[in-house]
Amino acid sequence: MPAERPIGVFDSGVGGLTVLRALAAALPEEAFLYLGDTARLPYGTKSAESVVRYATQCAGALIDRGVKALVVACNTASAAALTALEARFPEIPVIGVVEPGAAAAVAASLSGHIAVIATEGTIRGGAYRAAIERLRPAARVTGISGQVFVALAEEGWTEGPVTDLVAHRYLDQAFAGSDGPDTLLLGCTHFPVLAPALRRVVPQTAMLVDSAATTAAAARELLGLRGLRRQIPASSPRLRFLATDGPERFARIGSIFLGSPLAAGDVELIDV
Amino acid sequence: MPAERPIGVFDSGVGGLTVLRALAAALPEEAFLYLGDTARLPYGTKSAESVVRYATQCAGALIDRGVKALVVACNTASAAALTALEARFPEIPVIGVVEPGAAAAVAASLSGHIAVIATEGTIRGGAYRAAIERLRPAARVTGISGQVFVALAEEGWTEGPVTDLVAHRYLDQAFAGSDGPDTLLLGCTHFPVLAPALRRVVPQTAMLVDSAATTAAAARELLGLRGLRRQIPASSPRLRFLATDGPERFARIGSIFLGSPLAAGDVELIDV
Repeated sequence: MPAERPIGVFDSGVGGLTVLRALAAALPEEAFLYLGDTARLPYGTKSAESVVRYATQCAGALIDRGVKALVVACNTASAAALTALEARFPEIPVIGVVEPGAAAAVAASLSGHIAVIATEGTIRGGAYRAAIERLRPAARVTGISGQVFVALAEEGWTEGPVTDLVAHRYLDQAFAGSDGPDTLLLGCTHFPVLAPALRRVVPQTAMLVDSAATTAAAARELLGLRGLRRQIPASSPRLRFLATDGPERFARIGSIFLGSPLAAGDVELIDV
Repeated sequence: MPAERPIGVFDSGVGGLTVLRALAAALPEEAFLYLGDTARLPYGTKSAESVVRYATQCAGALIDRGVKALVVACNTASAAALTALEARFPEIPVIGVVEPGAAAAVAASLSGHIAVIATEGTIRGGAYRAAIERLRPAARVTGISGQVFVALAEEGWTEGPVTDLVAHRYLDQAFAGSDGPDTLLLGCTHFPVLAPALRRVVPQTAMLVDSAATTAAAARELLGLRGLRRQIPASSPRLRFLATDGPERFARIGSIFLGSPLAAGDVELIDV
């Protein structure tokens, strides 16, 4: 498994580009191959069985293309499929976003009362609750299913009155009262682009955390332990993109999440 | 092709239940088999090629189960795949929602200026514009892509301040000025449940039309012409439901669109 190979990253669509951005910053020598399974997005409303099947196919497509490690940059897929992926692909390290996100939230919270906002599938599966309680058994976890945020993020409505109102609707009740959460974990890779709007709605003292930076740190550590870090910077392009549907839409919406411009010609259409 | 067979109806998910409801009312003798392709929803953001493939698989699954006619209760699939379905399945009548919706809008509009609000895929494909212009060549068509409405309808947020604000954001500009549209065509099967909220946002004199009632009328006429109308009322249950993923979610969210209660046990999970 030569260290020069790219790191594979996949998500149901473009949300995982927030994780790719953090990975690229934390691992400046590495090259990345990103797969957005846009033909079957969103995963967040699908059953766990379907998500496991899709995630296994995405991982297989990336491994066929020679990646040396796999980052599951999708909360729903991390929650539902990480164990299945580790069992199916024992030859490479597999890193999800749930454990790093839970660790970030536990580190940020003083009171131990943590709110998690995520897709319906992630909340229903309870993976964040379980991961937080493993790290801090006395923690109190309030789960909030925030499906409309996904649509707002994809529409590019990251600021403005609609976003504020939806944020109030999802969050006000959870943060009301003196024993409300002191930390809000953004448990969906779409949500970091909404962070400025969410910050205005939660109490000033509350901490906002997401999985992107801690996942990148976890990936760096694991690659180092396994002797898989590149020694020489990768040549351009460091980032390559695959999608299972609609390269134009991937590029247009993806730019919001990656934080830098993407053209449809940068995105290769594949079947998985 | 015995007239006793059910009528097949399919959609990417639960939105098409607004069409099923109209069909069941217009054709009280008939039985219906509804398929929601929930494993791959939404179609509205997918490429035309993917939508044609999915629609062909859905139609095949219903025809394998003996339906005598096919209603494509999804605007995106009607726009992208109706011609392909007619060519592939010449043995049965295939009815889409685009032509009936366009006919309803043309009948309702005095000025000939018609706004269509639909998913990104439907607007991009231009099928409504083409269908309206075939019926009324001098018509002026304003297309509005309203993806966030899909999320609001699925979340059950059919009324309230968020819905009002999103409606203003999508519609105010199109309806401003003295030469604005006099008709708003709801070009997505999710949107009829939002009609009361939309009515408050468009000018009082504007007409709101959707495809459900006219599609049901078109289906009734076509079945009659082909001698496929049932003579004796179908025995219970008149409505049967198939889904490719998540029967619980299908039943819960589907109740909003069908307008009557649905239980997960009423929904059979299938692969297509």
